[in-house]
Amino acid sequence: MILFQCDYNEGAHPKVMEKMLETNMEQTPGYGEDAHCRHAAELIRKACCDDTLAVHFLVGGTQANMTVIDAALRSHQGVVSAQSGHINVHETGAVESLGHKVLSVPHKDGKLDAGQVEQLYLAHINDDSFEHTVQPKMVYISNPTEYGTLYSRKEIEDLSSICRKYGLYLFMDGARLGYGLAAPDNELDLPFLSQHCDVFYIGGTKVGALFGEAVVIANEELKKDFRYFIKQKGGMLAKGRLLGIQFETLFEDNLYMEISKHAIRLAEKLRSAFLEKGYPMLVENRTNQIFPIIPDAVLEKLGEKYGYCYQERVDETHSAVRFCTSWATLEENVDELIEDLKNF
Amino acid sequence: MILFQCDYNEGAHPKVMEKMLETNMEQTPGYGEDAHCRHAAELIRKACCDDTLAVHFLVGGTQANMTVIDAALRSHQGVVSAQSGHINVHETGAVESLGHKVLSVPHKDGKLDAGQVEQLYLAHINDDSFEHTVQPKMVYISNPTEYGTLYSRKEIEDLSSICRKYGLYLFMDGARLGYGLAAPDNELDLPFLSQHCDVFYIGGTKVGALFGEAVVIANEELKKDFRYFIKQKGGMLAKGRLLGIQFETLFEDNLYMEISKHAIRLAEKLRSAFLEKGYPMLVENRTNQIFPIIPDAVLEKLGEKYGYCYQERVDETHSAVRFCTSWATLEENVDELIEDLKNF
Amino acid sequence: MILFQCDYNEGAHPKVMEKMLETNMEQTPGYGEDAHCRHAAELIRKACCDDTLAVHFLVGGTQANMTVIDAALRSHQGVVSAQSGHINVHETGAVESLGHKVLSVPHKDGKLDAGQVEQLYLAHINDDSFEHTVQPKMVYISNPTEYGTLYSRKEIEDLSSICRKYGLYLFMDGARLGYGLAAPDNELDLPFLSQHCDVFYIGGTKVGALFGEAVVIANEELKKDFRYFIKQKGGMLAKGRLLGIQFETLFEDNLYMEISKHAIRLAEKLRSAFLEKGYPMLVENRTNQIFPIIPDAVLEKLGEKYGYCYQERVDETHSAVRFCTSWATLEENVDELIEDLKNF
Amino acid sequence: MILFQCDYNEGAHPKVMEKMLETNMEQTPGYGEDAHCRHAAELIRKACCDDTLAVHFLVGGTQANMTVIDAALRSHQGVVSAQSGHINVHETGAVESLGHKVLSVPHKDGKLDAGQVEQLYLAHINDDSFEHTVQPKMVYISNPTEYGTLYSRKEIEDLSSICRKYGLYLFMDGARLGYGLAAPDNELDLPFLSQHCDVFYIGGTKVGALFGEAVVIANEELKKDFRYFIKQKGGMLAKGRLLGIQFETLFEDNLYMEISKHAIRLAEKLRSAFLEKGYPMLVENRTNQIFPIIPDAVLEKLGEKYGYCYQERVDETHSAVRFCTSWATLEENVDELIEDLKNF
Repeated sequence: MILFQCDYNEGAHPKVMEKMLETNMEQTPGYGEDAHCRHAAELIRKACCDDTLAVHFLVGGTQANMTVIDAALRSHQGVVSAQSGHINVHETGAVESLGHKVLSVPHKDGKLDAGQVEQLYLAHINDDSFEHTVQPKMVYISNPTEYGTLYSRKEIEDLSSICRKYGLYLFMDGARLGYGLAAPDNELDLPFLSQHCDVFYIGGTKVGALFGEAVVIANEELKKDFRYFIKQKGGMLAKGRLLGIQFETLFEDNLYMEISKHAIRLAEKLRSAFLEKGYPMLVENRTNQIFPIIPDAVLEKLGEKYGYCYQERVDETHSAVRFCTSWATLEENVDELIEDLKNF
Repeated sequence: MILFQCDYNEGAHPKVMEKMLETNMEQTPGYGEDAHCRHAAELIRKACCDDTLAVHFLVGGTQANMTVIDAALRSHQGVVSAQSGHINVHETGAVESLGHKVLSVPHKDGKLDAGQVEQLYLAHINDDSFEHTVQPKMVYISNPTEYGTLYSRKEIEDLSSICRKYGLYLFMDGARLGYGLAAPDNELDLPFLSQHCDVFYIGGTKVGALFGEAVVIANEELKKDFRYFIKQKGGMLAKGRLLGIQFETLFEDNLYMEISKHAIRLAEKLRSAFLEKGYPMLVENRTNQIFPIIPDAVLEKLGEKYGYCYQERVDETHSAVRFCTSWATLEENVDELIEDLKNF
Repeated sequence: MILFQCDYNEGAHPKVMEKMLETNMEQTPGYGEDAHCRHAAELIRKACCDDTLAVHFLVGGTQANMTVIDAALRSHQGVVSAQSGHINVHETGAVESLGHKVLSVPHKDGKLDAGQVEQLYLAHINDDSFEHTVQPKMVYISNPTEYGTLYSRKEIEDLSSICRKYGLYLFMDGARLGYGLAAPDNELDLPFLSQHCDVFYIGGTKVGALFGEAVVIANEELKKDFRYFIKQKGGMLAKGRLLGIQFETLFEDNLYMEISKHAIRLAEKLRSAFLEKGYPMLVENRTNQIFPIIPDAVLEKLGEKYGYCYQERVDETHSAVRFCTSWATLEENVDELIEDLKNF
Repeated sequence: MILFQCDYNEGAHPKVMEKMLETNMEQTPGYGEDAHCRHAAELIRKACCDDTLAVHFLVGGTQANMTVIDAALRSHQGVVSAQSGHINVHETGAVESLGHKVLSVPHKDGKLDAGQVEQLYLAHINDDSFEHTVQPKMVYISNPTEYGTLYSRKEIEDLSSICRKYGLYLFMDGARLGYGLAAPDNELDLPFLSQHCDVFYIGGTKVGALFGEAVVIANEELKKDFRYFIKQKGGMLAKGRLLGIQFETLFEDNLYMEISKHAIRLAEKLRSAFLEKGYPMLVENRTNQIFPIIPDAVLEKLGEKYGYCYQERVDETHSAVRFCTSWATLEENVDELIEDLKNF
């Protein structure tokens, strides 16, 4: 079986593994207070062109989301999210388990827009019984979204403006950020994100690391006491250096972007093959997640040899599925799949 | 600097790293539902001589503690712990952050006894306003304790009996379990723990792994739905196999016990050197944590070359400190310290 | 100003006040462990024709909802509710503040149906990554709903069957239960509710009491330790007898139903007047909440003399509003409003 | 039976009941936004000589404690309390249920002192792994304490200074505040409390009301959004006016202090009788709770006719018990008890 079902089917990029081995018997202090973490944070601040940013390393995406959100909100405040948002659907209610309501709103291909946020905020403050409802205080978006779509520069600027106008925090989940930044239609970069988000993270788990997300905090209010929250939520790795070492490697010599581009190049190749075959896309995007609509009969045959992720039924004989590429995808596997597609 | 301050200053045992490298580009499903995790769980069940046990792998100790405790308790129930217990002191209130009170009681060298538990339980149920107080439902102990001390067979049997008599769960934190089982005065083994605890964990982070704790659940009530809690608490690693691979390695060819014995042998050597030098111990134990009471003047000199952990002031000119050994400790470093000790 | 905006604009029914006065200097034990509470519970069990029911008295509706829900759910479990449900919209996230997600689903005039619950439950258990989503465990409905609509006998039977089939708890919020039971199209009664719900409550705050809701628990699992939860959520009144005294009064000589009928009779009268005037209803119902759609110009005039509750804009010149009657509504006030309506 | 076991055995002061009756059929808006609540708040601000204070009315003490504490703390912060503090012992872990650790410290007759608070705070910030422990942010005291003792002016000044020095909030639980202010050795008054506490409350439940506590907030930070918390914790009474009406009555014509003095006069009388009889006190105080140490044989006889509260065993034949007086205590009952005491 060749797996395309997600972007975390393998271990880490060989350079990451090499650095892990090389530093294995070094003695360092625990809990992220070592030179590797400091260096990695420095590299990320540099990549963001802002040396005032706070950078923290967490093990995974759910952990990053719940830690950031709990650190930002008081008990009566909630976080606005697209209904399809990861925090609203796929984290077993982690945000609620910490006491905060996810204020979900309809989305377009996984995206929120500034108008929705403004409408929701104004509806709250103009409600006579506003104190009987949860106060919106943070906006959660992801880029790429769950549907692999991207926000434009303008869309982020608008979201950021609205958030600042009303005192809301803008938080971007960047679990697949590399695959967004490397997409042909991407308009964003790290300095832009640092300027427009209050907090965001750069995903490592899906982009070359064994695990790890780099949380970047721009807003001073959110920097205060953040490490207490990491510890309390169970996210403070005893051997914190493991995170530092991985992000050091990813942010040296542009590795993070290079391996992201690899995934995108293969995704484009595969996407074209589906389209040429006459399989339309459930959602248009140019990132590493591809959502072709495929006849069920073909899917069955594909499934004997290739792992993919079932997305949703489209009609009686067609389904949308997800194929992912990643830093680890072998071109020969993509080529084999393309070849097979022609014959099915 | 040579660090003895804790047992997580290095990476992982070379065999663990080797296996990580070897399996790096394998494709597996995520979230711990892969063959490595299944195999590792199988090996642990075998080591415990009980094939009905549920085994789950979590990244760290605080995460394991909070996940187990939250999965076990309803909102009105609390967990009994020694005042010195890790959950009571060093987890930034993680248990409370999930809504549960830690019912702390005085300890003797880090240990609880069955009599204390019974007394606390009876005081609760005999209180006229018992519903105004937190209901004790779980007993948390660690072995070795925070002071490196061990429970005897009899002590665990008594705790287990009392807990079963009153419907309490017995939970053992085994973050350093290997260093307990390998101690010269140890009376316990894994099958015994499986029979007497409702749930316990086998620490990997401090015993040869990069990170990871294997939670072993014996009580049927606690097995139900446990994976939901792992996910909700942010502990479900996307590349769950990393945990499986590490525990596979540790539980093949007795590696876990062998490397634990190494740490104990060096601890014994170092402990003897302190005693010979005339430095008494704050607490008597035979595990990998050593708590000598040392003149401050000597400490200052030691501190220029060796990392240790400050524990507490004993009198105006003496302090108790902690030195740890581990699977990674080099004998030459211990010898050098012993040599230096003679000269200070 | 004559207020019709809600059903809690006045104090308590004169008979309730009389009994409060009469018993004022009696000495009783605190926290609901007095003879009045015992007697009131007995009367309610009798009215429900089931002497095994647990009956507890709480001060208000939000408190009742959060206490029942938190007592019923483990941390990974959620409660299904109509999007319009009070717990989802108007309790400042009280349920989430205790760690539980409200799983909201679309509604029809405030109601859920058994098919929706089954679909949601099956979607959960058939999801490959079900452990990444909140487990549905309780279904919350209210009768009358937020829109004043009622469940039929058949609808409750179906909901109850589905819940029992899948191990879900059925919980009915009866903050306005009296006004449901007294409606001309009502098909339910207390014994039926006791048989089909796992837990429900009989609202006093809106039906003749100063405050108070009587929580009736039929399911044995939910009875256990319930008083701990009342205390923990801040709902255990020191002078618990105040609740007992009020419900004693309401459940003697059929007072609860009589005063409910009064409200319904006046609601019917007022509803007819709106319809005769040519104002259609936003929602059809026969309970104490009336939702006429009224020209804005008329509303403005009405607002000078009568309090009503703004519901929603219907078109550019019409709005839906809410008028409530209650046990306290004076017929002369209704008549005056009807007279004025004719002239506007 | 004549009950002296607590100060909430009866209903409300006749003047309160009278006002409740008198206003019963008035129509007012709900949720505390009515003229009675505004007036009551005004009277309390006047009594405190500070018209910038925020005043909110809550139903009971546990509710007031949990609402104030949750509104004040972020998730990683805890509240310092005497081990004997009500929040630490008798609220079924309400504070922990909202995610916050109670940092309990030893007490002297129920009291904390400034030195303890400073020591605990400094220990926290000087701890190398301070982020692994709960951050102290609020200090909870009660006056009178659980032992009926009072803070002196100097003690409160010192606590207040230390709290301000380190950025901690000072919170006084005044469930029995009237009985403190009316004590012969009292040194405090409401203006002093407003100046030295960040927040405190004036207890009504035990001092003349059916129920109700008036929370007085002096610190601007704590005023913000407080009503959201009242609603979320289930404490926002639909008929909020009931609280306003009661406090209006209590704070007109000095009623609150007058009825408090009544309780104190009778307590002094009863205390003297115990002392004359040769029964020493477990704790010295001059408030409405009396803790005599009495021979068990006498207690048995007393128990046939009088309700008291068992406190603790003192030796094999003696126990400490609690007798309370209140606004409702009849002098004839006290006299009868004193007479009986002479004969036992």
